[in-house]
Amino acid sequence: MNLRTDLAIEAHELADKAELSGVRAETHQAGAFSVTRVRVEEDGAAKLGKPKGEYVTVEAPHLLFDDPELPEALTRLVAEELSRMMGRCDGVTLVVGLGNRDITADALGPMTAERVLVTRHLQAEMPLFSHLNLSPVCAVIPGVLGLTGIETAEIVRGVAERVKPARILLIDALAARRMERVNTTVQLSDTGIQPGAGIGNHRLALDEETLGAPVFSLGVPTVVDAATIAADALSGLCRHAPDSFASFFAGMSESDRRGVLVEVLGGAEQNQIVTPKEMDGHVRRLAGILGEAVSVALQPRTDPQLIRDLIFT
Amino acid sequence: MNLRTDLAIEAHELADKAELSGVRAETHQAGAFSVTRVRVEEDGAAKLGKPKGEYVTVEAPHLLFDDPELPEALTRLVAEELSRMMGRCDGVTLVVGLGNRDITADALGPMTAERVLVTRHLQAEMPLFSHLNLSPVCAVIPGVLGLTGIETAEIVRGVAERVKPARILLIDALAARRMERVNTTVQLSDTGIQPGAGIGNHRLALDEETLGAPVFSLGVPTVVDAATIAADALSGLCRHAPDSFASFFAGMSESDRRGVLVEVLGGAEQNQIVTPKEMDGHVRRLAGILGEAVSVALQPRTDPQLIRDLIFT
Amino acid sequence: MNLRTDLAIEAHELADKAELSGVRAETHQAGAFSVTRVRVEEDGAAKLGKPKGEYVTVEAPHLLFDDPELPEALTRLVAEELSRMMGRCDGVTLVVGLGNRDITADALGPMTAERVLVTRHLQAEMPLFSHLNLSPVCAVIPGVLGLTGIETAEIVRGVAERVKPARILLIDALAARRMERVNTTVQLSDTGIQPGAGIGNHRLALDEETLGAPVFSLGVPTVVDAATIAADALSGLCRHAPDSFASFFAGMSESDRRGVLVEVLGGAEQNQIVTPKEMDGHVRRLAGILGEAVSVALQPRTDPQLIRDLIFT
Amino acid sequence: MNLRTDLAIEAHELADKAELSGVRAETHQAGAFSVTRVRVEEDGAAKLGKPKGEYVTVEAPHLLFDDPELPEALTRLVAEELSRMMGRCDGVTLVVGLGNRDITADALGPMTAERVLVTRHLQAEMPLFSHLNLSPVCAVIPGVLGLTGIETAEIVRGVAERVKPARILLIDALAARRMERVNTTVQLSDTGIQPGAGIGNHRLALDEETLGAPVFSLGVPTVVDAATIAADALSGLCRHAPDSFASFFAGMSESDRRGVLVEVLGGAEQNQIVTPKEMDGHVRRLAGILGEAVSVALQPRTDPQLIRDLIFT
Repeated sequence: MNLRTDLAIEAHELADKAELSGVRAETHQAGAFSVTRVRVEEDGAAKLGKPKGEYVTVEAPHLLFDDPELPEALTRLVAEELSRMMGRCDGVTLVVGLGNRDITADALGPMTAERVLVTRHLQAEMPLFSHLNLSPVCAVIPGVLGLTGIETAEIVRGVAERVKPARILLIDALAARRMERVNTTVQLSDTGIQPGAGIGNHRLALDEETLGAPVFSLGVPTVVDAATIAADALSGLCRHAPDSFASFFAGMSESDRRGVLVEVLGGAEQNQIVTPKEMDGHVRRLAGILGEAVSVALQPRTDPQLIRDLIFT
Repeated sequence: MNLRTDLAIEAHELADKAELSGVRAETHQAGAFSVTRVRVEEDGAAKLGKPKGEYVTVEAPHLLFDDPELPEALTRLVAEELSRMMGRCDGVTLVVGLGNRDITADALGPMTAERVLVTRHLQAEMPLFSHLNLSPVCAVIPGVLGLTGIETAEIVRGVAERVKPARILLIDALAARRMERVNTTVQLSDTGIQPGAGIGNHRLALDEETLGAPVFSLGVPTVVDAATIAADALSGLCRHAPDSFASFFAGMSESDRRGVLVEVLGGAEQNQIVTPKEMDGHVRRLAGILGEAVSVALQPRTDPQLIRDLIFT
Repeated sequence: MNLRTDLAIEAHELADKAELSGVRAETHQAGAFSVTRVRVEEDGAAKLGKPKGEYVTVEAPHLLFDDPELPEALTRLVAEELSRMMGRCDGVTLVVGLGNRDITADALGPMTAERVLVTRHLQAEMPLFSHLNLSPVCAVIPGVLGLTGIETAEIVRGVAERVKPARILLIDALAARRMERVNTTVQLSDTGIQPGAGIGNHRLALDEETLGAPVFSLGVPTVVDAATIAADALSGLCRHAPDSFASFFAGMSESDRRGVLVEVLGGAEQNQIVTPKEMDGHVRRLAGILGEAVSVALQPRTDPQLIRDLIFT
Repeated sequence: MNLRTDLAIEAHELADKAELSGVRAETHQAGAFSVTRVRVEEDGAAKLGKPKGEYVTVEAPHLLFDDPELPEALTRLVAEELSRMMGRCDGVTLVVGLGNRDITADALGPMTAERVLVTRHLQAEMPLFSHLNLSPVCAVIPGVLGLTGIETAEIVRGVAERVKPARILLIDALAARRMERVNTTVQLSDTGIQPGAGIGNHRLALDEETLGAPVFSLGVPTVVDAATIAADALSGLCRHAPDSFASFFAGMSESDRRGVLVEVLGGAEQNQIVTPKEMDGHVRRLAGILGEAVSVALQPRTDPQLIRDLIFT
């Protein structure tokens, strides 16, 4: 049914493994978290529907926010993975908070970008900057097409041409396929963002080709399309149904299946999303975790505790 | 499967009509809107699972916010229906905004209560108050149990014992059973709110018995439980499936069906909700519509345009 | 000129010490903070214009939010002072967040009350409650007269009559007389709040007499009246002016002086306030400090670190 | 004392008229509003401290928000003046919301830009766009240096180089010299914004030279520096003081006077501002007025009522 996911780990789960010669995935446990690295080669990209590159997924336990120690541990782990993936760099890093701050489920990018320690403007005040060994970081929140009338990629490119960053880090809210990943999974990658990805459904690619510098991305799924939930209910049922039904279901045409979903979701609009009820608080906390992780990862030469102190003052 | 709805109109749709001797429903069209009055008598209450009383449902077209004239027409219609149901009253009306302002889908009550014209404190300044023929209105936003540690009903009763209102109007966000009713349907009733109703799942009843004055309520469904969407997908499919499947499905035990849903929704938690993506803007607009409608309805002796002007200054 | 201050320490500074037989004040240093205890006896109350009781003022350095360690140290110090003043208590504590959340400078009370750990509703779930040795705490945010039509004191009294707290803690934004105290000074007292106090200018007293239980209060000055700033400019100048001017100024009538101020402030309205430009961020941080301090102080039998963890999950 | 104002009308009031050969000002009444046009020629620019160009100031009565008809009338008047000043244009207009949305007094620019009808992205969907005769408008909110690490002018220039607008409209919160102008005065000009102007104190100029297209600006003063209030109190007093004092005051050195102010304002920081207490609500309403006025002014070929409808849907 071609249900939507922005997570490489889910695309991998769904794919027919026998055919995925150009994709390697391995998972290990890091304390309470599970870390999966998916490496997509040239020949695996089309099959997986994700560009060539490395994708790291950190999965936290379901009750992430009910355990006071998990958010801090997750912050450290994301900082480490991001630091490893992005490496050291003497040039400017441009952080971009994608999405619409006025839609809770889409506000993760803007809210995180606001919490990232920016330092590029302090370079002029050299003594402090060099004394603390700070790396130059700047951040923009470009807004969304419906509110600006400008493609996000156009704005970021315009800013990049002035700032000339050595690399760009995009932060965005994602759509997952499975409910238990919502608000508990962090995906890092060294590829950009493709058209149609993200909650806000970016229309143009944001990658090295369009932006002119290496692009990394960081995101958390905050929603599942309602259509996905409904479709999963159908599939789930198939596993319990008598064979005659399974073969009926397998034999239904794509458009018949879609018809059932559209009927259930009350219209042709595909804009319904499924989220936890306490979404607003979750997004605020996730933005805190990612903001701190990014700030620490982008300052490899400075004591992490000092970075945390600088964020909170 | 006993799926949840706070709307009497939906409870009526779902019920076996043959048995509903104590329930009458009639629908008429009012411009772009459909208005349904459901009257529940003593002997119909248990069958319908809703207390005895009158329920008026105003249904707006699906694209309520895409037509610039519909919100204004809806405001007028809700004001008229509310005015008719509540009648005139010389005493104080206490408006109560139920729900949690920090959860978008549950913020309708607090946001509406903030927009209602309050006048009770102006009585002391008699000339203005009587010159404009204002009726005394006051409003409270009691918060939710998890943030106050106090049952909502306890707070409202405490305030009511001091203020001694002649009547109470509760405003709350509701759960619907069908997606197309979300953000487009307004329900008025002359009954209070029962335990388990509302997005915030009130634990104690808020009615004349617990609050000590006649209670009216006003609400809009802002969510559908994700479990409902999934269950509807199953039922929808049954209508298309071969008979052998329909009888299989009819023969599944309640707990087996629930098992499929829990699996799909990724855990035992029943806290996932389905909402439109642009929820934040919708709730703000709905609060504007209801706030104005309530303000006008509660001031039957004053020119509606003057009330509107007073709200916006 | 009778300029306004809600701080006992400032009222004491301004008073003629020779006449203050019923007032004692002593100051000591606690790390970076200065702590002043003002004890007002029956016969000193009228002279000072503050009710009989104990007032503790904690003054932080001017750059409170520029040093990452000061906020945490202030949190601990306020928790200790509050714990000492309020003592232990087996009954319920009712926390009241006074003020208007929609006016930044007046939002401290509501924002703090939202961050206080409430536990009263957990008593029913006994095992957890008693295992953690939690004390019962509940909280309300009554709103302001202009938005509710009900005197704040009426609402709090109504709730108190239902909840029957053993004691009440009021939290409010205050007005100071001197700019350097804004956002850097915390005042605790075992008296309630008098008419005219607080940014919102409460019209009725909130004290043991009106609320029916011992009342404590906690606040931070967030503004100085613009009239105060202007008047201070005049007085400051006097100290530099030739004697002939000082005597002229001393000889000006109260109404002449007031005339100058009204002229400068552009009208009769006394609603202009002076605040730091970054007010919004400061109030958010202060609410975090006070919310944690209150939560810890009200749970004397539970490990403070556990309380902090419970707040943040 | 060189007190700060962003209003040309105030700079003109303060200047020595005899010397202002290159500046012409004329005022007329338009209903409840007073409209002043200040034209600054090349040779008047330095004397006035404002760049060459036209400045139109619309002054509303003090109680702008207490009269329900004034906001609407102001919206229409600002739309007309803006339309007259900016003229017709077939190219794209880029609207820029300057300032920091997290500081209430500085949030006017971002909040207004969010309310402007953007249409540039609809051009691709030609039928609708041309049927309604819409002109292409786009908008950005660049943020402030402290949060982005990038000069505002750099971001706007980067975007302008991609979008290639025919003209740019900057919207910003301003500082006034006199309290009665706060939140009641709208300034339009066909010049850009100079370094040091605006609440956020822009460090680089935003004008045709730096941005590459003709620049217009629109703003409302939302604050007065606290130093200005204090200084005005001193000057006000002088008018009442005996001659000996007036000559003393006139004879005080600049640094002595400044010393008095710094003492009064509690430190060297010049960051204290004076605002009305209800600032948050005022800024929201002003953003509504300006957003509608700009939307209408930028669509000269479309019926204003239709534009209003499009904004509110």
